Amino acid sequence: MVIMDEFKLINKIKQTYYRNASLIKGIGDDAAVFKQTNQSILTAVDTFVENIHFIKDKTMSTKQLGYRCLAVNISDLAAMGAVPRFYLVSVVIPPNWEELDVLSVFDGLSQLAKKHQMDLIGGDTVSGDTFVLSVTVIGYADEEKVRYRSDAKVDDIVFVTGTLGDAGIGLDILLNDLKINNQSYFINRHQVPEPRVTFAQLLNKIDRLSLNDISDGLSSELNEIAKASNISIMINDKDIPVNKELKKLPDHQQIKYKYSSGEDFELVGTTSKKNWNQIKQAAKKAGILVTKIGQVVTSTNEQVFVDNYNQILKSNGYIHLK
Amino acid sequence: MVIMDEFKLINKIKQTYYRNASLIKGIGDDAAVFKQTNQSILTAVDTFVENIHFIKDKTMSTKQLGYRCLAVNISDLAAMGAVPRFYLVSVVIPPNWEELDVLSVFDGLSQLAKKHQMDLIGGDTVSGDTFVLSVTVIGYADEEKVRYRSDAKVDDIVFVTGTLGDAGIGLDILLNDLKINNQSYFINRHQVPEPRVTFAQLLNKIDRLSLNDISDGLSSELNEIAKASNISIMINDKDIPVNKELKKLPDHQQIKYKYSSGEDFELVGTTSKKNWNQIKQAAKKAGILVTKIGQVVTSTNEQVFVDNYNQILKSNGYIHLK
Repeated sequence: MVIMDEFKLINKIKQTYYRNASLIKGIGDDAAVFKQTNQSILTAVDTFVENIHFIKDKTMSTKQLGYRCLAVNISDLAAMGAVPRFYLVSVVIPPNWEELDVLSVFDGLSQLAKKHQMDLIGGDTVSGDTFVLSVTVIGYADEEKVRYRSDAKVDDIVFVTGTLGDAGIGLDILLNDLKINNQSYFINRHQVPEPRVTFAQLLNKIDRLSLNDISDGLSSELNEIAKASNISIMINDKDIPVNKELKKLPDHQQIKYKYSSGEDFELVGTTSKKNWNQIKQAAKKAGILVTKIGQVVTSTNEQVFVDNYNQILKSNGYIHLK
Repeated sequence: MVIMDEFKLINKIKQTYYRNASLIKGIGDDAAVFKQTNQSILTAVDTFVENIHFIKDKTMSTKQLGYRCLAVNISDLAAMGAVPRFYLVSVVIPPNWEELDVLSVFDGLSQLAKKHQMDLIGGDTVSGDTFVLSVTVIGYADEEKVRYRSDAKVDDIVFVTGTLGDAGIGLDILLNDLKINNQSYFINRHQVPEPRVTFAQLLNKIDRLSLNDISDGLSSELNEIAKASNISIMINDKDIPVNKELKKLPDHQQIKYKYSSGEDFELVGTTSKKNWNQIKQAAKKAGILVTKIGQVVTSTNEQVFVDNYNQILKSNGYIHLK
């Protein structure tokens, strides 16, 4: 698509009404304007590049691409305990993309935005050789309920939501012809991940909670929590929740999907033992799985151990034997 | 540059301290966190693509590229009457870019950020075929002093800052070997534009003001104000401020640079006659030029006229004869 008239495209994309009362001015001036006098404001950005993060019509449809790019951003906010409110979209459109493809990306974005009561409040559409979609999200959270990865404490329970590795399996089915049952389940987990906003919001009564979304694999996220909180973590390999089909794969593949496969956009967190029941109730209410996979242990080295103190889980998913 | 380790790159880019007290958490978690209980929050995004918006080391250096991409965004905030505070950067890095080039882009960004007391609070660095730089800015303004393009009223004075067309001439010197005196002045205006934040802030005592930054050419911006405010505008061609060298060019080139050449990132606005002295004083204090170029006239058609009611200035810079 050669952009002949950016204004016409914007008019097709622009919402006819806005959902958020805190929004003062959406699209249509040099900048969007909003006001938030009570809560903290959170913001993050994520970028998708064609043939790097997705292959058009092979790993996902253009609509799923829009959906997924916003989902990834919403997941970042969920991992901070925030509710998403606004998003801005920057899109680089190559000549070989049809206008319908571009509109379909925005359709995917707006479908998920609607579900989360979000508004599209800004953007930029430019021409280029390669398709790039960059989304900035803005959300709100009560200041004392923002969930930092630096808040883990010794004796905390370590938990994860959902099952891990599903999205990675889905991608390998699409790209590398991986043989496994229930293919559509795994593919779906890759193409339309569900950010855990509801669950994270249901934890609002809990005073202290460290939280990360699993975007770079469990091993990376656990190490980030250990480092940021200056603690160590001991997890039990057999407790990591996985789909029953994954258990049929060879060991080295199981390890890869469990520890290094990100992009399930599940949450990993830690909280004190007294809150564990609340966490389980919140998961039940949100209709998702939550599993205790280990605990925070005393150690000076900010490390992540698997099963015993001789096995160290590195950020890249490699288990180092002492 | 092939991104082997995103974390190492982030550590090189990350600020060692933050300038804004309203920032609670910068880079280092799933999202940045800030709080602003008094003022409105403004946000905009702009994207630069290699060989579309710039040619590396031909139209500008990598450092100027970073500087300019942030300047363009700051200009959007200035045109809303806001002060810039934060920015997020998404960058797509192709294999043929060296790490030093990328760091130089961030050097340009941080140089201008420092000048405006802004903090880099988020970003995403990914691989791709083409270099893309996308910057999201966040700023603050008092709610009743946000400057909308829809606030022009009949009998308002229409003014612009600076001289128009300089950046366009600069680009044509670099790209098309345009012959003109004082080349370095014009090239500089293209490579390192200065957003008019100080001037816009000095107008803070003025109750009502419509304002746009001239990013798409004077004709486009005037038509946007006319349409958004449901008024018409009459400008005087000879009053449009231009560099004396521009006046030596053939008429059709003068018209092009004056009306269609954006990216000077000067401001165009309207205000009631009683405020005109304040505007002139603000410009003097900010050390910039401000010029009255016309006034808001009664008309039902939301049009922009040049010199008389028979010459209509279209958004694309074409002067249509009635």
